[in-house]
Order: sequence, then C-alpha cells, then structure tokens
Amino acid sequence: MTMPALSKRCAAEAIGTAFLLATVVGSGIMAERLADGNVALALLGNTLPTGAILVVLITMLAPVSGAHFNPAVTLVFVMKRSLPAMDGAWYVGVQIAGGILGVVAAHVMFEVSVMQTSSTVRTGMGQWVAEAIATFGLVFVILMTLRAREQAVAMAVGLYITAAYWFTASTSFANPAVTIARSVTDTFSGIRPLDMPIFVLVQIMGALAALAVATWLLSDDVSVAAAESRAAE
Amino acid sequence: MTMPALSKRCAAEAIGTAFLLATVVGSGIMAERLADGNVALALLGNTLPTGAILVVLITMLAPVSGAHFNPAVTLVFVMKRSLPAMDGAWYVGVQIAGGILGVVAAHVMFEVSVMQTSSTVRTGMGQWVAEAIATFGLVFVILMTLRAREQAVAMAVGLYITAAYWFTASTSFANPAVTIARSVTDTFSGIRPLDMPIFVLVQIMGALAALAVATWLLSDDVSVAAAESRAAE
Amino acid sequence: MTMPALSKRCAAEAIGTAFLLATVVGSGIMAERLADGNVALALLGNTLPTGAILVVLITMLAPVSGAHFNPAVTLVFVMKRSLPAMDGAWYVGVQIAGGILGVVAAHVMFEVSVMQTSSTVRTGMGQWVAEAIATFGLVFVILMTLRAREQAVAMAVGLYITAAYWFTASTSFANPAVTIARSVTDTFSGIRPLDMPIFVLVQIMGALAALAVATWLLSDDVSVAAAESRAAE
Amino acid sequence: MTMPALSKRCAAEAIGTAFLLATVVGSGIMAERLADGNVALALLGNTLPTGAILVVLITMLAPVSGAHFNPAVTLVFVMKRSLPAMDGAWYVGVQIAGGILGVVAAHVMFEVSVMQTSSTVRTGMGQWVAEAIATFGLVFVILMTLRAREQAVAMAVGLYITAAYWFTASTSFANPAVTIARSVTDTFSGIRPLDMPIFVLVQIMGALAALAVATWLLSDDVSVAAAESRAAE
Repeated sequence: MTMPALSKRCAAEAIGTAFLLATVVGSGIMAERLADGNVALALLGNTLPTGAILVVLITMLAPVSGAHFNPAVTLVFVMKRSLPAMDGAWYVGVQIAGGILGVVAAHVMFEVSVMQTSSTVRTGMGQWVAEAIATFGLVFVILMTLRAREQAVAMAVGLYITAAYWFTASTSFANPAVTIARSVTDTFSGIRPLDMPIFVLVQIMGALAALAVATWLLSDDVSVAAAESRAAE
Repeated sequence: MTMPALSKRCAAEAIGTAFLLATVVGSGIMAERLADGNVALALLGNTLPTGAILVVLITMLAPVSGAHFNPAVTLVFVMKRSLPAMDGAWYVGVQIAGGILGVVAAHVMFEVSVMQTSSTVRTGMGQWVAEAIATFGLVFVILMTLRAREQAVAMAVGLYITAAYWFTASTSFANPAVTIARSVTDTFSGIRPLDMPIFVLVQIMGALAALAVATWLLSDDVSVAAAESRAAE
Repeated sequence: MTMPALSKRCAAEAIGTAFLLATVVGSGIMAERLADGNVALALLGNTLPTGAILVVLITMLAPVSGAHFNPAVTLVFVMKRSLPAMDGAWYVGVQIAGGILGVVAAHVMFEVSVMQTSSTVRTGMGQWVAEAIATFGLVFVILMTLRAREQAVAMAVGLYITAAYWFTASTSFANPAVTIARSVTDTFSGIRPLDMPIFVLVQIMGALAALAVATWLLSDDVSVAAAESRAAE
Repeated sequence: MTMPALSKRCAAEAIGTAFLLATVVGSGIMAERLADGNVALALLGNTLPTGAILVVLITMLAPVSGAHFNPAVTLVFVMKRSLPAMDGAWYVGVQIAGGILGVVAAHVMFEVSVMQTSSTVRTGMGQWVAEAIATFGLVFVILMTLRAREQAVAMAVGLYITAAYWFTASTSFANPAVTIARSVTDTFSGIRPLDMPIFVLVQIMGALAALAVATWLLSDDVSVAAAESRAAE
C-alpha cells in the first residue's frame, strides 16, 4: 500500500490542525461573547463545534495522512511502527505550525490582536490528572475503535471529545499541538504558557499508558488458545 | 466462536464502566458549577457527554466483552444463555468496582473528597415507575436493535439515554452498577444510599419485562407460518 | 416476503408511539420545570430527546412494523399499496391508543393528574400553514430517503423533527396520533382539544402533497429516456 | 449513467434550498423570540436545526440533483466538468428562487411581513475573511469527503456548518443563494442588501481556492510513483 507523498500528508495534517484550532478558539470567542456571562452556555457553544469539526476533519483527511492532528497520536503510531519516525517528526512540526495558523485565523476573523499570550491559569494536581485521563481515553478510543470498526473512528473521536470537554476538569486538551497553540490566544480557550509544559508531559504519559493497555487487550491469547486447543483434543 | 479471555473481558467491562461513571459524575460536577443555578442547562451539560460517551464505549469495547457496563444487561444475557452465569457474576463484580473507580477519578479531577455519601433524595412512586420504564426501554432497545441492525446498537443506546435523561422523572439511571456508584458522590448526579435498593429492584423488574416482550416480538410465528403454509397448498 | 403477524406489528406500533409520546410530554414537563422560565432552553430540552428517541424507535422497530407511529404516514403507505387498508386501520387505532398510554405514563412518572385537558391555544393561519409544511416535509423525507438510502431513514426522521421543532411556528406536531395524544396533557407540549381537528386536517393535506411530489420526482422519465434512446440511434 | 430529467433536478434543488432557508430563517425567528435576549442560546437554537436539516436534505436529494443548494458548489462542479454549464445556470437560478420561497414560507408561518429588507449590518475585514474561510472549508469538505467516503458527505456538511456557525465571525453563510435570500428577511439571520455583494464575492474566492487545494491533494503523484517504480527495479 502506497501512502500519498509526504508533502501532501503534511499539508493534510497542517490544514486539519488549523481548522481544529480555528474551531476551538473561534467558537470559544463567539460563545463567550454571546453567552452573557453564563459559562455553561459558553462551554456548550465551544463543545458542539469542536466535536462536530473533529468528525468532519478525520472523515475527510484520514485517507490522506491518517488524520492525527495530534503529536501524542503521531508518537503512538510511530511506536506501533505504522509511521516512520522521520515522517512522524514532520507530522509534529506541521501540526504545531498549523495549529498556530488556525489560532491566527480565528483572531483575524474576530478582529482581535493576531498574536497573544494567554493569561488563563490551568494548573494543579486535578488538572494534571484530568489531562492524563483525557489523553489516555483519546488514544484508547482511537486504537480500540480502529480494530472494532475502522469507519467509526471519526465519529468516536468527535463524540469522545464532546464528552471529555465536560467530564475532565481541564476541558480536555489531550493534544500537545492544541496545548501549544492555545497558549498564544488570550481568549476563552487559552492556557498560560507557563502551564503548558506539564500539560504536554502528562498527555504523553496518558497516551503511552493507553498504548500499553490497548496492546494487551487486543493481543491474541496464545496461552488460552493453546489450552483450548489441548482441551479440544 | 472464541470469546477473548475472561481477564480481558473483565478489564473491558471495568474500564468502560469507569469511563461511564467518570463522565456521568464529572460532567455533572462541571455542569452544575458553570450553570449559574439553571438546572436545565446543568442537565443539558450532563446529558450530552453521557450520551456521547456511551456511543464511544460500546462501539470500541463491544467486540471484547459485549460492552454491557450494566448488571441488568448482563443478567438478561445470562438468562438468554449468551453468557455463562459464572462469567456474568464476574462481569457484575467488575462493573460495580469500575463504576466506583470512575466516581473516584471524577472526584480527584475536580478536587473534591475522594469518597462521599450522597444526600440527594430520589424516592417515591413516580421515580420508581420511571426507573422501571427507563430500564425496560434500555433493555428493549438493546435486544431489538441487536436483531434489527447490530452495528446500530451503540448509537441507539447513546441516543436512548440522551432522551431518557429528560423523559423520565428520575433522569434514568437504568443501571444497578451506575446506581451503586452514584451513591458514593454527593454531587449533581448522586443518589442517597437509602434510596438505592428500590432503584435496583425496579430496574431488574423493568429489564426482565423487556426480555419477555422482546422475546415474544422476535419469535417466529409458527402458527401463522403453518397457517400460511396450509393456505398455500 | 412475509410480514410479522399483525398482532406483533400492532404491538410494535403501540409501544413505539407510547415511547414517542412519553418522550415528547415527559421531556416537555422536565424541561419546563428546570428551565427557570427560559422557553428557548425548555424547547431545547424538549427537542433533543424527541429527535433522539425517533432515531432509536425507527431503527429498532422498522423490521417489525415499518415503524410508522403516525396515521398520516400509515395513510400514505396504504395509498402506495405497501400496506393493506385493513392493517392500516389497525395501525391507526393502536397508534392513538399507544400515544395516549405514553402521555399517561409521563403523567404517572412526573406525579401529575393522569388524564388532563390541554388549555394551550394553537390556532391561526400561521400555525396551520406550519403544520401542513411540517407534515409535507416529514412524509417527503421518509419517501425520498427510503429510495435514496433506506438505512438512513431513522436518522433522517430524527434530524428532520429536530429541525422542524424550531423552523415551524407550531413546533411541528406533523402527526395526527401525536396531536390527539397531546390534547390530553395540560403541560408544555399540550394542544387545546378545540384546535386539534384543523391540525389533523392540514397534516393529512401536507402528507398527500408530499406523496404526489415524491411520486413524480421518483418516477422513471419514460419520455426522456425514449427521446434519448432515439437521439442515440 | 443517466441523470434524472433537468426538470426534476431543478425541482430537487428548489425544494432543498427552500427547506434550507425556511430552517435558517424560521429557526432564527423562533430562537430569538424564545431566548429572552441571550444570543448564545438563540444561536444554538439556530445552529442545531440548520445542521440537522442539511444532513436530511443532502441524504435524500443527492441521488436526484447532487444536492448542491449552493451556487458556489454548483460552480465548482461545473468547473470540474461534472455538470454541464447550462444545467449549472439553471441550478443557480432555482436555488435563488427556492431560497427566497423558503424565506417567504418562514415569514408566513411566523406571521410577519412576507417580504422584508434586512437591516443587519455584516461588513468589515473580519467578516469577509470569515466568509472566505467558511466557504473554502465547505467546498473542501465536500470534495475531500466525496473521495474519502461518499456516503458521509451529508453528515460531513451538516456537522461542518454546525461548527462554522460558531467558529466564523460571520456565522458562516458560505452560500451565495443563502446570502441573497437572507437579505430579504429583517429577522435574526438577515443581512443588509448593501453587504451582500462582497459576501458573495469572497465566497466564490474561497470556493475556488478549495477546488485548487483539493485537486492537488487528490491528484496522483506521478513523479513519486515513477521514482518508486524506478527504485523498485
């Protein structure tokens, strides 16, 4: 099976991550402006667009690049040897660049300063546990659904993030490129640059844990099969 | 057809029920904190994540364990002889343990006391009828959709619970493991331990009624077929 | 192709219409109680459950009875000769009975008087045009989607009603059985008995118009095909 | 492959665009009336119906006319030589006529003046960039999803617009026929006629850009394939 040229795969990763961030940041600005101070309503207006665009982006770009839009996901596929490490490095680079481009696009559309520095504090043990769980869940969903029903991955990721915006205390960044890009917007969805590194760290830990658990769950039960085979004789 | 090893199926049931409860309780805390006293908005912020995560969990874990996450569902499959009774006992045990683990995870993320006792009163004839109807509906949906279009079960369950959160007076627990786990959180989605046993009882009654009705609806019409066969001669 | 016995098909129509009405009326009560006077929020809490349950009910019961739950739809299928007229009469009877049963169930769950008479005025040219358009749209969606992609009918109907609750001035009853059943509840979703007959009348007119338009759109273009065939010679 | 007669395709485009506009304008009126001044809630009540009806309309009418409902989309398919230019001209004409008809229908249902002139100012660089991005995204989604999974186009468009209502500063018209039709309603979703032409212009620019990018992304990598072929020798 031939993958598309790396240039096209990188373009797909950049465009996808740009639209993802434009949606996260843009809908955050729109929702906060209109919600009249009700934060639940603002989060709702941030959640639905994010979940929806993820389904769209993954559906349409999966055949080109695999539709990662997420360095933690790319890392997992490199570790599974589904993607050469060098390609993975390119993916991560364009994901971060695309993400920042998406934030800039949102800023231009909503006529605020193009580059900003977030002042939203997101720190503490609860937030870190939340990010680890959120990213564990995201990677687990991707790996398990790829095996269970590949066509359902786009929908599963969109619905998972819809849920995780609400059930995690951090509103589920679960993505190092998203975390970096959200540090350059001082709007609803921002994160203070100082708080970024630990988020990225626990995200990677969560992703690796998910890889381990999913690999075990999906492994063949050689010993069981052997035992059953013996029993059948 | 070989099922995965029991250890893996139990892990799937535990992980799934843990994520389900983390979502129910976590999104309940988030929604109530942000909703500024508007309970409809809080329930909306509790409903969408719950419905969404159910679709995800069932899609990805059905091939491993059947994705019950619910002792009433497990009971029904044991009675249909789709699952050995001993496996069913294990399922129920890990569902309850996983559910409590999920509640604890939500508490840790939102930085509240890890173990709590709910003080939310949920009692009275209306609530009991509601739980019986809710669980009847849930099991009926599962059994009928399994026959009508197996791939649609995950979506059907997620959408059913989305509806049932609003059309039942109890917000549709419809699950003994969920009911037990929700008794150890004193947040939006809690239930007073005292009110738990009757909930579980009427849930099981509803589930058994659904099994009876679905079995009849899906049975072959032997007498009709025989009559038609005679008529055709 | 053998249809299931009429008794089972009638049971499916009754159960389905009962759950539909329990959802419409139950979620209406829940939403209004919690929405703190904000009617947009109440309508949202009424819309999502109704759209969701329709997808579920049609998915699981279509193989049994066709999943009409609506006398206007049954009428159209009788006129298309997909259903014997006598069976259609039974369908309509159990749809109305099931609908009323669903309203009663909602009343019992929410502990209000079991039988009520609605006092909600729904009358005037705008409402009547709205009901005709709503039912035209519903039947048109069913007939066109059955041809375009049969598996998508359940989703299409659920999403159509989700939209129609908001884009029609009447919140889209679009169903004579629903209209009759909603006249016996004096809650959010009720309709004054006096206003019921015209609603039913314009619903049937809308349904028949949809049958005519869809039949034309889906007909083979004999004359065009003949002309093309001549041109090709 | 024979397309249906042009008359039927034009009817499908007119009916579809009429229902689309009736939904956009009708749900806008309903949502604003009920939302008690909370614009986030009003936009939510405008977004969900619009996204939902798009899925329905495209699912059911795609086999008849391709379900464009959008002159920018029709232009792109004419440029791709999927549709004769003359047919395209007819499509655009009936899309505009159908759109205005849909607005009139909404006005009749909600009992406001049948023809109006919008006074809602929508102008400025942010809005124009937003419309270009919104239409780029819409056409990109259509072209990429058609290749990735044709059956998912209806869902992808519905979810994309759901997101774009919130992440673009203009609430994403992304459609010249919709823009023209929304200039004749002075309600929630209107646009001042004076602001219309630039919207249409940047929409077309966005659509053409999407055609260029998608064509490149989906092209065969002849040089790459040749290089690989040489390497394999």
